[in-house]
Amino acid sequence: MITRKEFNYAVERTLEYLDKVGIAVTEEERKRVEIADFGLSNLEKEGLEILTYVNTDRCCAKELVMFPGQTCPEHRHPMVNGRPGKEETFRCRYGRVYLYVDGEPTEDIKALRPNDSPDTYTVSHEVILNPGEQYTLPPNTLHWFQAGEEGAVVSEFSTSSVDEADIFTDKNVLRETIID
Amino acid sequence: MITRKEFNYAVERTLEYLDKVGIAVTEEERKRVEIADFGLSNLEKEGLEILTYVNTDRCCAKELVMFPGQTCPEHRHPMVNGRPGKEETFRCRYGRVYLYVDGEPTEDIKALRPNDSPDTYTVSHEVILNPGEQYTLPPNTLHWFQAGEEGAVVSEFSTSSVDEADIFTDKNVLRETIID
Repeated sequence: MITRKEFNYAVERTLEYLDKVGIAVTEEERKRVEIADFGLSNLEKEGLEILTYVNTDRCCAKELVMFPGQTCPEHRHPMVNGRPGKEETFRCRYGRVYLYVDGEPTEDIKALRPNDSPDTYTVSHEVILNPGEQYTLPPNTLHWFQAGEEGAVVSEFSTSSVDEADIFTDKNVLRETIID
Repeated sequence: MITRKEFNYAVERTLEYLDKVGIAVTEEERKRVEIADFGLSNLEKEGLEILTYVNTDRCCAKELVMFPGQTCPEHRHPMVNGRPGKEETFRCRYGRVYLYVDGEPTEDIKALRPNDSPDTYTVSHEVILNPGEQYTLPPNTLHWFQAGEEGAVVSEFSTSSVDEADIFTDKNVLRETIID
């Protein structure tokens, strides 16, 4: 849950990031920036700001904005209605992203896990994305990511996005953001 | 057919557009910018510059660069191997794009047809895209587009791209660019 004031401030900051990076956004789009606190009520720590450009039943493109040190909680995209899960490519446009995926664990990862619970962030194969660098994630692969100290702007190119199907490792996560 | 010198110059200009718009590109990507003259040997008039970020068997993302007044010839994306044709979204990042699609013809279109033949550019329903504006094209829809006087940078988000399956209205078009 976040307050209306926190929500408005997050939208304003998100648009400032997009402006700074030179990403043109229409008036209509400015009004529908999505603020995701994942029901964890600590947006600055665990959250994500999203502008969805297009999401059809075949493909999807979004701009993701992350505030400094902000983390998108660990999750995966399972099969939906008999179709393979979402495949996604993250392309860093600005800042730096520390991405963690299933695979050989990396020792001494650069990101700081947002909490000490061993049941919320379980994969630690590190991929670091600087501007212009990208990574394509196969369906159903556990992943989480954290912005560096300048925050980050990341383009996401993917198959159809069905957020409500995502499976988060942290059982406290709610995909819906409640504004109160 | 274009000369090696023309090719190199086109790559250099393409990278200048991307730099100007603030799009970060890796060294590896700078070396694989695609210059398409569509076999028409007049790149400045009919051509397209392409940087493909990702193209899997499910989805694809590219950056398209167009020089001032340059036109991508009319074509459509048919069904391939029993799968629906390519669906694509064009999002203007910089400059202006005059896009023509199948539908109610627009009188006095803004673009200048690259030639007088009635058999090469047949659709004229006009869509104008300024920075931040986008248009999603259903599969198998005839379309062509031309950059405005500043040129254009356009992000393309789509399903899998199978260039060799594209059907061009102008029978002189060859999808392959020959450098001599």
